[in-house]
Amino acid sequence: MAPGKVKNIKKSALQLSEGVKQPPSVNKEAYNFTRQKRKKLLTAKDYVKGIISQNKIILSQAITIIESNHTSHKKIASEIIEACIPYSGNSIRVGITGVPGVGKSSFIEALGTQITSSGQKLAVLTIDPSSKKSGGSILGDKTRMEKLSTDPLAFIRPTPSSGTLGGVAGKTRDTIILCEAAGYDTIFVETVGVGQSETMVHSMVDFFLLLMLAGSGDELQGIKRGIMEMADALVITKADGDNIKRALQAQTKFKNALHFFPLAESGWTPCVLKCSAVSETGLIDVWETILNYIKFVKQNSWFQQNRDQQSAYWLNQTIEENIKQYFYNDPFIKKELVKWKKEVLSGKTSSFIAANKILEKYFKLKD
Amino acid sequence: MAPGKVKNIKKSALQLSEGVKQPPSVNKEAYNFTRQKRKKLLTAKDYVKGIISQNKIILSQAITIIESNHTSHKKIASEIIEACIPYSGNSIRVGITGVPGVGKSSFIEALGTQITSSGQKLAVLTIDPSSKKSGGSILGDKTRMEKLSTDPLAFIRPTPSSGTLGGVAGKTRDTIILCEAAGYDTIFVETVGVGQSETMVHSMVDFFLLLMLAGSGDELQGIKRGIMEMADALVITKADGDNIKRALQAQTKFKNALHFFPLAESGWTPCVLKCSAVSETGLIDVWETILNYIKFVKQNSWFQQNRDQQSAYWLNQTIEENIKQYFYNDPFIKKELVKWKKEVLSGKTSSFIAANKILEKYFKLKD
Repeated sequence: MAPGKVKNIKKSALQLSEGVKQPPSVNKEAYNFTRQKRKKLLTAKDYVKGIISQNKIILSQAITIIESNHTSHKKIASEIIEACIPYSGNSIRVGITGVPGVGKSSFIEALGTQITSSGQKLAVLTIDPSSKKSGGSILGDKTRMEKLSTDPLAFIRPTPSSGTLGGVAGKTRDTIILCEAAGYDTIFVETVGVGQSETMVHSMVDFFLLLMLAGSGDELQGIKRGIMEMADALVITKADGDNIKRALQAQTKFKNALHFFPLAESGWTPCVLKCSAVSETGLIDVWETILNYIKFVKQNSWFQQNRDQQSAYWLNQTIEENIKQYFYNDPFIKKELVKWKKEVLSGKTSSFIAANKILEKYFKLKD
Repeated sequence: MAPGKVKNIKKSALQLSEGVKQPPSVNKEAYNFTRQKRKKLLTAKDYVKGIISQNKIILSQAITIIESNHTSHKKIASEIIEACIPYSGNSIRVGITGVPGVGKSSFIEALGTQITSSGQKLAVLTIDPSSKKSGGSILGDKTRMEKLSTDPLAFIRPTPSSGTLGGVAGKTRDTIILCEAAGYDTIFVETVGVGQSETMVHSMVDFFLLLMLAGSGDELQGIKRGIMEMADALVITKADGDNIKRALQAQTKFKNALHFFPLAESGWTPCVLKCSAVSETGLIDVWETILNYIKFVKQNSWFQQNRDQQSAYWLNQTIEENIKQYFYNDPFIKKELVKWKKEVLSGKTSSFIAANKILEKYFKLKD
């Protein structure tokens, strides 16, 4: 409980010490509150300096500011991002997805440690819009990726799961900028296979990787065709032990299925690979495929073209989501919507007419 | 050329008769213009009266007014629709889709004539947002459905293919209202299998029917899983001659595939049927399936619940599309967008920051 709030609480037998300032050891939350206040005294310059000098703690704090929805943080967040942009853009951005149970964390842990063991720096950002957890998932991710979480060359960060998908996306994109400025050569953006979030992640990465289980049909895996179409590579996980034969069969099956897919704009033909995080096989192939892809799209200029398209897309996306929110949060519109929805549902008018009447009033009000 | 415009055109050797009124036989366009003016003299009441008395020509003219984007038509269009609503809602609305070549027209022609031969009235509305044709497609549809187009109990009408998908949708929904008021018991809304338009049609019908070809994988047919998930029935077409065996195999295959799909909100289990427009087999089964479905969802109250949800959906959908258009058509915003897009693409700021700066200016201007 923050000290400022204590006064508003009714006296009770349980609150003997109301109004008396607690020492940090007793009132931990109050102590943290003061610490947080002290943290805020850093200027945008300090944050940028810390990020450029690859200070993980400062990087984390800066990301927290970007994620914040407080208006007071908006200005400093913009300053940090704009100062970091000149240092950004040089990483390989890889989106990774797959249904729960496919072994995303084990895969990222195994591939990630191979990357860092070659001296490269890796940032792992995770997005899970279906989760309502806030702080918990940080610990969750760190437990799931034991080696990477203590690796000095790796940085693991879950995105806040609150807010709209578009909001989360904007913040993740800006987090990528900060991580790149902090010297991370590879950025993994991990997401759970729920459909909408894949489209979002696909729109912010250079390479999109879909993890698949061997031995079960794609119907069973619930992977939508649209997601398969976005993939630059399909990787069949858990290709070890008794599973190798099934993984091989799945590989053939998916290779055949991909033939029927429309050619990707990048000109790249998606690969189907298999690997095992347990036996540490196939991981080098995955990484080499990613590097080959990057070489290929840099040569045919798709790399930059794609990044530019993504920037334009997110500019429009952010705008559209905000004007919608602004509209629906208008107290007058809220009332009008209730009224007209009733008219429509009771069969007095059509949806199209009602919508136009609300819009007429809204834009007359605004003009 | 409209007579009023002649004065603004420079004199030339080719315009000897400038300013002199042409007789209808010489100046056809001027003549048509006068005719159109005469048409407009009908009042909303006249149109409604004509529609209720099941006059096909008046119905057609009223739909043209609804489809019109002229502001002068908006008021009368609303009046017509609102007056028709009390007479609407009593039809069975069926969405029909399938890839080009699946035989949609032959299917509709065959099933349609069966429906009208039992004395029921059928309206067929076609949506093809990918087509840029305007008048041409009317003739096209009438040629494709030879029997229905001369059937006094049938009414065939293509929607205008210009405009946004949402705009087309709103107009199609209002056209359904008019057709119902004109006594059509069954409304078919046909669309080409291109993805977005299916979602739109699915959101305005009671029953959604997906036509499939026998003997080719769904990969080959390019049917997205999402569309299969929306279907209340899959109908395998051209199940005749040598094709019967393959149709049977396809039926089994699709039945198995549907097992893996999530249960529909309606509680209805989708059927897989087969039919032939040529040998006129299986059509009665399709129609009975539709009637069984309607009975089922009327009993479990999904029928009305779904229609209400659709109304609310289209209310929001129309609003959102319009506020977006209004924003992007703002001359100030157009300039700002060009400017900020440049800033983003040249790496001076991030998409997220740029979007917020444009929004701040927009809402300050509007407030």
